[in-house]
Amino acid sequence: MTNTQVTLVQIDNYGPWTVTPEPRREADLQTLQSRLYADLSQLIGSRGGYVFFTRFDNMVAVTNGLDAADHALIQESVANRYPVTLSLGVATGPNPAGALADATGVIQAAGSAQDSDRRGVLDGEFAGDRTDDGVQIAHFDVIDATGEYTDALNAFDTFIEIEQGYAALMKYMRHSHDALSFFVGGDNIIAVCPDLETGAYEEAIDHVEDDAGVSLQVGAGRGSNAHAAGMAAKHALEACREDGSRVELAWERG
Amino acid sequence: MTNTQVTLVQIDNYGPWTVTPEPRREADLQTLQSRLYADLSQLIGSRGGYVFFTRFDNMVAVTNGLDAADHALIQESVANRYPVTLSLGVATGPNPAGALADATGVIQAAGSAQDSDRRGVLDGEFAGDRTDDGVQIAHFDVIDATGEYTDALNAFDTFIEIEQGYAALMKYMRHSHDALSFFVGGDNIIAVCPDLETGAYEEAIDHVEDDAGVSLQVGAGRGSNAHAAGMAAKHALEACREDGSRVELAWERG
Amino acid sequence: MTNTQVTLVQIDNYGPWTVTPEPRREADLQTLQSRLYADLSQLIGSRGGYVFFTRFDNMVAVTNGLDAADHALIQESVANRYPVTLSLGVATGPNPAGALADATGVIQAAGSAQDSDRRGVLDGEFAGDRTDDGVQIAHFDVIDATGEYTDALNAFDTFIEIEQGYAALMKYMRHSHDALSFFVGGDNIIAVCPDLETGAYEEAIDHVEDDAGVSLQVGAGRGSNAHAAGMAAKHALEACREDGSRVELAWERG
Amino acid sequence: MTNTQVTLVQIDNYGPWTVTPEPRREADLQTLQSRLYADLSQLIGSRGGYVFFTRFDNMVAVTNGLDAADHALIQESVANRYPVTLSLGVATGPNPAGALADATGVIQAAGSAQDSDRRGVLDGEFAGDRTDDGVQIAHFDVIDATGEYTDALNAFDTFIEIEQGYAALMKYMRHSHDALSFFVGGDNIIAVCPDLETGAYEEAIDHVEDDAGVSLQVGAGRGSNAHAAGMAAKHALEACREDGSRVELAWERG
Repeated sequence: MTNTQVTLVQIDNYGPWTVTPEPRREADLQTLQSRLYADLSQLIGSRGGYVFFTRFDNMVAVTNGLDAADHALIQESVANRYPVTLSLGVATGPNPAGALADATGVIQAAGSAQDSDRRGVLDGEFAGDRTDDGVQIAHFDVIDATGEYTDALNAFDTFIEIEQGYAALMKYMRHSHDALSFFVGGDNIIAVCPDLETGAYEEAIDHVEDDAGVSLQVGAGRGSNAHAAGMAAKHALEACREDGSRVELAWERG
Repeated sequence: MTNTQVTLVQIDNYGPWTVTPEPRREADLQTLQSRLYADLSQLIGSRGGYVFFTRFDNMVAVTNGLDAADHALIQESVANRYPVTLSLGVATGPNPAGALADATGVIQAAGSAQDSDRRGVLDGEFAGDRTDDGVQIAHFDVIDATGEYTDALNAFDTFIEIEQGYAALMKYMRHSHDALSFFVGGDNIIAVCPDLETGAYEEAIDHVEDDAGVSLQVGAGRGSNAHAAGMAAKHALEACREDGSRVELAWERG
Repeated sequence: MTNTQVTLVQIDNYGPWTVTPEPRREADLQTLQSRLYADLSQLIGSRGGYVFFTRFDNMVAVTNGLDAADHALIQESVANRYPVTLSLGVATGPNPAGALADATGVIQAAGSAQDSDRRGVLDGEFAGDRTDDGVQIAHFDVIDATGEYTDALNAFDTFIEIEQGYAALMKYMRHSHDALSFFVGGDNIIAVCPDLETGAYEEAIDHVEDDAGVSLQVGAGRGSNAHAAGMAAKHALEACREDGSRVELAWERG
Repeated sequence: MTNTQVTLVQIDNYGPWTVTPEPRREADLQTLQSRLYADLSQLIGSRGGYVFFTRFDNMVAVTNGLDAADHALIQESVANRYPVTLSLGVATGPNPAGALADATGVIQAAGSAQDSDRRGVLDGEFAGDRTDDGVQIAHFDVIDATGEYTDALNAFDTFIEIEQGYAALMKYMRHSHDALSFFVGGDNIIAVCPDLETGAYEEAIDHVEDDAGVSLQVGAGRGSNAHAAGMAAKHALEACREDGSRVELAWERG
């Protein structure tokens, strides 16, 4: 059974800050957001976690293996180097969407995202030793995206196709399986899943094909943390590319 | 009339690189992509342009005011500091989607995105003096996103709402107006538009409300480059927030 | 004749900030300082200038070609993305040390480096059209530093040798020629010089050999800005490496 | 007794790379070097270590608490994101200079710093459980540097004073105590020391006063890793600032 530790990262009072005293240069906001995400990606990723940019002012991380002290260090490091601060809500459970709901609740209970008095929340339930149950990660991509889209359409129409495929998948996985799916660039989508088997992935792929006309393949992996599960998923996806299968599960390969 | 100079930025042969000789750590890929985007945001943004992360391996920029030498410098600077290189296709026209199609064609004509021999393409048609016609930028956001979504739903369900609103808007603006719309974080979407007036924006907002149930407001601005037009749009959007209007055009305020 | 535009970049009230309310993590301060320097290096360097890290809280830049608006943009971009702000003093003259003294005076006149009320100074004398007189840059390195030091001594004793060579050169060039010399990593020193000829460089090299026992070679270049002059100097230094000469002037090669 | 784990970080074949096929833009090299240093500062610093920029192409780190897997991860992350690779030599001992000599020897034994075939060395002796003996860090700064220098002299003459003070201290501490002293910006010098007591620090301060005319104060701390010892040293230095003492040892305060 999976037991996913999820952290919601929310920039404190960010919206008002971006327009105070006047709207700030968009290029600087984009730089700030993407570098903050990159820093979190290193701080969390080098400890075996994954963080997804999501809306940039609200980022979602899978943090099995990171304890409260790790979270406090990340929060302190950002506060030392950025003009903004972070609140972190943490929760753990077999159901990724449920865990994220709990993590969101931790932050919401402390105040609004636009409450100028709410800064640097850090609270929630850490997986601790229960991490052994591990994480399931699925790595999807679009079959022959380069040939079908990138080299064939204009860049925006390609983007529309990828985006519609993502929009279909994210909704389906959320509502059918309480999984959290994130676009991670190119034609790649990473989903944080509960225990799912081949059939569930096949149905997801069929749904996206029907709904958005986009053909996906997927590798899924399990591991004690997001990196381990995700790397297994990447290798499984390589197997799809090599042998033309549409679903490969890393735990069936061993 | 607008005359938008669009640059398509494509990382050369990126997909194969990410899995050679084996899949690379996802956290490092995310860091690389977001920092590269941040660097482009500074290099282009400090010259008055806008760049959007789009798919990260394919980014779209509005580059009125940047000439071929500026593009060459950006390309050289990235090649000096990253393990990957960029191809840049440039085109100009009154119709943003049309210009991006031409810019895409410049790169496609030189080879596939996954062609290991195609590196550092830089070609196309620069606006030059015709820049005077300028750019139109619209800055959308979701009405009371914090109260309606961020403080009320779990973070993923909020994200689904924002994402569905974006998916609806991007398609509508592309197919109705040849405009290019990009999610830029939080609840913000920036659209690069041809000459549009109030009615067109009202219809777009109505469409998204009907299609995705998301309530948008928008400020639009014109200027000689993306930064000038975009800053006017931000001020127009502030006017929406203050007076409760749903569409404000910066050029009607003077 | 040279006419060097020099900008002193000073972080406002930085010392007190680093220990308020308690001493901040050194790793975060080092990250902040070096990334701020990197950002300035891109913002200034992509406009043809050079910036040197110097003491990190006080950095020296050669900014021929950057006007007041460019300086204001850099200041704004940093203020938007960092928890600290910058003051910028600018001055221009044939004598680099004299120009830096004037630039320093601009900032000192506005208040102390540790004055909590002094923020975001931007003032001074820009070169404007007089930039045509240009800049002279000399690029020194240590002859066979890898063989003599890096591969032969322990890393700290190598560093002592390089450092003592730099300490000797910086004082000599300052006091004999009003030139400003900066260690730029490895075994490289870049000096911002007034009009100097071969004999002056030979004497400088002899002085460092006598004083610190370190053998230098140098290429010098002239140009309309720091990048142009510095790139000519680099090519001149390559000529030293190829033909064993100790001084090469780029303007004698044409 | 101290037992310092020292890592020498050397960029592989960097000098030749900077001029191949032609000299690269100095601004890009400066950006690359300082960002690489910043990344190492985060990767090492968030694990309790310290890294010093030293010559940038050769950096020295105190890495008690980081094992071989941590070093491999750092090496892999840099290789995934930069156009250069790192070699890492590690050694441990009560004498910092001796440990660095051994760490240097590890890399030198594998080939020259400019050997194009030597890439990604990772070898040496890790402290392992012996880390308990801990690290001693001294944090020096210049008494009233702002009043005496920054606000009073031009920025380069201030820099000369700070630099000469550093040059005097680094040599003295190396030759008298096998300590490794690094300028870390502003008027701050951090020394990695063996077991030293008050008298040794008083003599060092007197030496720098006599030799370079620069007045230092110092706080020293001990801890299980560089961060813990360094933070104790920072607090001790705050005590100097408050009570006017010139040497404070954190382990005498408890």
